Amino acid sequence: MRIAVAGLGTVGGGLLNLLQQRDSVQVVAVCARTRHKKRTCSIEGIAWYDDVVTMARDAEVDLVVELMGGEGGVALDCARTALQQGKNFVTANKALLARHGAEISRLAEAKGCVIGWEAAVAAAVPVVAAMRQSLLANNTQRITGIVNGTCNYILSRLETQNEDFATALRGAQEKGYAEADPRADTQGFDSAQKIALLAALAFATPPALDEVSVEGIEQVSLDDVNFAKRRGFAIRLLAIAERIEDKISLRVHPTLVRLDSDFAAVCGVRNAILYQGDFSGQVFLAGQGAGAAATASAVAGDILDIARGRSTPLFGTPDAKLNPLPFFPLQDIVSPWYLHFRVQDKVGVVAAIATVLSECNISISAILQDDTRARQQRAMSCVSLLMWTHRTPGSAVARALHAIEKAKLLQGRAVAWRILDDEPQVEQQA
Amino acid sequence: MRIAVAGLGTVGGGLLNLLQQRDSVQVVAVCARTRHKKRTCSIEGIAWYDDVVTMARDAEVDLVVELMGGEGGVALDCARTALQQGKNFVTANKALLARHGAEISRLAEAKGCVIGWEAAVAAAVPVVAAMRQSLLANNTQRITGIVNGTCNYILSRLETQNEDFATALRGAQEKGYAEADPRADTQGFDSAQKIALLAALAFATPPALDEVSVEGIEQVSLDDVNFAKRRGFAIRLLAIAERIEDKISLRVHPTLVRLDSDFAAVCGVRNAILYQGDFSGQVFLAGQGAGAAATASAVAGDILDIARGRSTPLFGTPDAKLNPLPFFPLQDIVSPWYLHFRVQDKVGVVAAIATVLSECNISISAILQDDTRARQQRAMSCVSLLMWTHRTPGSAVARALHAIEKAKLLQGRAVAWRILDDEPQVEQQA
Repeated sequence: MRIAVAGLGTVGGGLLNLLQQRDSVQVVAVCARTRHKKRTCSIEGIAWYDDVVTMARDAEVDLVVELMGGEGGVALDCARTALQQGKNFVTANKALLARHGAEISRLAEAKGCVIGWEAAVAAAVPVVAAMRQSLLANNTQRITGIVNGTCNYILSRLETQNEDFATALRGAQEKGYAEADPRADTQGFDSAQKIALLAALAFATPPALDEVSVEGIEQVSLDDVNFAKRRGFAIRLLAIAERIEDKISLRVHPTLVRLDSDFAAVCGVRNAILYQGDFSGQVFLAGQGAGAAATASAVAGDILDIARGRSTPLFGTPDAKLNPLPFFPLQDIVSPWYLHFRVQDKVGVVAAIATVLSECNISISAILQDDTRARQQRAMSCVSLLMWTHRTPGSAVARALHAIEKAKLLQGRAVAWRILDDEPQVEQQA
Repeated sequence: MRIAVAGLGTVGGGLLNLLQQRDSVQVVAVCARTRHKKRTCSIEGIAWYDDVVTMARDAEVDLVVELMGGEGGVALDCARTALQQGKNFVTANKALLARHGAEISRLAEAKGCVIGWEAAVAAAVPVVAAMRQSLLANNTQRITGIVNGTCNYILSRLETQNEDFATALRGAQEKGYAEADPRADTQGFDSAQKIALLAALAFATPPALDEVSVEGIEQVSLDDVNFAKRRGFAIRLLAIAERIEDKISLRVHPTLVRLDSDFAAVCGVRNAILYQGDFSGQVFLAGQGAGAAATASAVAGDILDIARGRSTPLFGTPDAKLNPLPFFPLQDIVSPWYLHFRVQDKVGVVAAIATVLSECNISISAILQDDTRARQQRAMSCVSLLMWTHRTPGSAVARALHAIEKAKLLQGRAVAWRILDDEPQVEQQA
């Protein structure tokens, strides 16, 4: 099995180091932006290509590994060329697959090629193999994941180190966990790509990136984390794919999870996925979701597996059987909610807000007004009003927030996040 | 793909129910002890066999599923016949594979057959697929597992319900979690079979059931669970396979784990495996380790995967490359310890025990003498003396216990269990 590797950054270097310690596969060609620079891996005796398309055409090569990243451009050219040449293809590129997965799946099947992409979601955590194979006999009910290590690191710092968002983000950047421009992570798009891919596996649909409702963690304040903790919750950025009757719901949003739950125990850059199938019950997988070594582990596992002649459809189901499913609207999803209103400290505000909630048919399970000490520290006339609701559809919460904002009762924007619960969804129209 | 199913107990019934809800595979033959009895599944239109060997010879059958259990006898006959006929073979039978895995691996390879056995370890938890494929590129450092739901249920009841061992066991039997004769579970043999199989995968060795050091949970008292909890630990039956230099250590024993660890959070009949590889880092997998539906999920996953033409060696490595490795002696394994001595409440006993420990070079990190209230409840002159040690080899602890017992300082047997730590083993001879 002769391998070509496109991209020699952190992950590419990690992969070469791993493969050079094993003797089962041979890297025969590499391609990267700059030929002569200091690397963590040796490329001695390996053919060098400046152009990835030329490399992917190399007749000596059986399998092309793409580790460049990016949802189109060179990465897409690399995939197309490799597959058109009948070569197997392994990638860690969730952006590419989330955007062009349907095309790549079709092309791979037409050419009889295999695509390995374990590394694209949660790196070393074998969630793709689990869903393409071991759990395949199940009807998937729900997948819930912490699939972005950067966000989870930041939220963990708020929770355990009492840092504010900006400090935690800076720390993540210094440690190499966050990019200079962190928005793809912190705004939830990276998680959206990953849940679109897991949903394709779970529900035998083409990946539907544009149908994922996305809210990132940029509004999560240290206050929110502490208020949540006081009532026994942690805040996590969850990516959720769920089947509700004949529709699917795809969403990424900050979510309150119970402190004694598996998800609350996922701290720092770890990733975790909770799979729920009709026969398997809940299966929980957790581990390193990023980093050179963990990603190389997943890529190399795919390579060895393909070397054995394994052939699995890209999304677990033959391309012709992938069916787009209708989407369940986010506003109809029912859950308990955490609401945080910053209001002026004056008579009647609480009553006014409570009245709006009641008019929107939102039932409150608990109210907390920010304690004096915290207010004094801030020396502000602004008070935090926290409300915890019973199960409520998103549409009612949106209606209430709109009315409250319109009534000019707030200082700044209200925050409304769902609380994770295990109750099945009931369609609102029923 | 035409399937024959041998064994129609809980799991066989669950599998038939699952497969009858899917249309991708067809069950054409079944075999069980009693033909006419009330079942949870329908066998209408399926050929019936009284004899499993005759069924395994049926030319109509492509794949034989063995769900009878037992380490030899009919299950072994079934495996041998199916493979000799060139049929693929799927089993949930850890006893069969732990005892006869090497023979079955050889036979399967000679005949070009595939063996699916995801269900044999931790049922719905996809640990076999993870280790045979996704994590295969790693050098495995350690696998640590809670792989027996019965024991974990009992220990959880002690911990959370304050039940004693006998009550918890009776409860497990009433719920169907424990057999009428529970010893295969409670004495650790079931866990030993499973860790022998995972070690074969991890270290490319034939399964070495007889080399697993086994201690069950029958000595674990409610007192021990409470003493451990007071110092921030839970007690779990862990199965461990570890590479130490060029040797492997295989062991099953009650172990103290920190209350904030992943393992302490595994309660009731759940199973969990923590895999540690040189590139992957720690990967944690947890879920339903038993039961009709969860086991059927794993068996059906294997069936679908084989239907796709997948072919993986039984233990992830071609039979000719399976190498027996020497074993690292349990007494050389170093760890902190929990020691529980029941002693007479008289002057000088603590000093005498401490002196013996000191002579054996055992360094104590904490001492606790049972508080008065607990003693009064028992109205006994016997006192519990708890000691927590720094890292100590098993040989030193054994020597100390022997000397203490010989000195007639104890009422009943001493208890000594290891505390899980992440320090690497250092060979004592170094």
